[in-house]
Amino acid sequence: MAQDITPQGRPGEVVDIVVWNADGLAPVVTQQHDTGEVLMFAWADKAALLHTLESRRATYFSRSRGGQWVKGESSGNAQAVVEVRVDCDGDVILYRVDSPGPACHQLRRSCFSHRVESDGSVHTDRPIL
Amino acid sequence: MAQDITPQGRPGEVVDIVVWNADGLAPVVTQQHDTGEVLMFAWADKAALLHTLESRRATYFSRSRGGQWVKGESSGNAQAVVEVRVDCDGDVILYRVDSPGPACHQLRRSCFSHRVESDGSVHTDRPIL
Repeated sequence: MAQDITPQGRPGEVVDIVVWNADGLAPVVTQQHDTGEVLMFAWADKAALLHTLESRRATYFSRSRGGQWVKGESSGNAQAVVEVRVDCDGDVILYRVDSPGPACHQLRRSCFSHRVESDGSVHTDRPIL
Repeated sequence: MAQDITPQGRPGEVVDIVVWNADGLAPVVTQQHDTGEVLMFAWADKAALLHTLESRRATYFSRSRGGQWVKGESSGNAQAVVEVRVDCDGDVILYRVDSPGPACHQLRRSCFSHRVESDGSVHTDRPIL
């Protein structure tokens, strides 16, 4: 476990508080703000986090495309950001969003569409479309 | 994005489906099953995931201690596992748990105790104790 963070309430401090990995990224968990559903897991760099905070549109860093990814820019399924949180040691970011459409590229509500049974077998939810 | 997984419903397949990183670990998001609250973010290896599925006790791999970590074994704040899920490309695990006590070592309900404002300032929730 990394060291616990001690925020000062200073504008802009979040980029110094978050623990960025060797690639300059931090993991982001995204959940629907009212139902609590965990929608997806992705990554952000400093610019993506700042863009999220300023625009209130969930923005990520796409490792496959190597650049900023404003969710919904191509798919139309944008996520309006209700709240951004960071965890006790500053190495994970939480986006609490309003995501009216599917969050997953498979056009499912959530990326976590596979249920694991006690025997280790995996079962996929029906698609939403 | 990695390749989408295609589960077959075969007992034990989850350890082959999950994409383990170079250290043999996969990230785990843990949420309270009924409220949806995101409680913590941690890691699991194959043994920890299998222990979770068999025992229904949330089990992780502690990177600082370098070994299996059955949540609550030392703190008393165990997490009863209601459901285990994996995401579309198999590189993130979701534990849906019943966590009656604090999930965070800071004795807070959730590790995500810091709110980030639009100006990038960070503000900490009051402790629960």
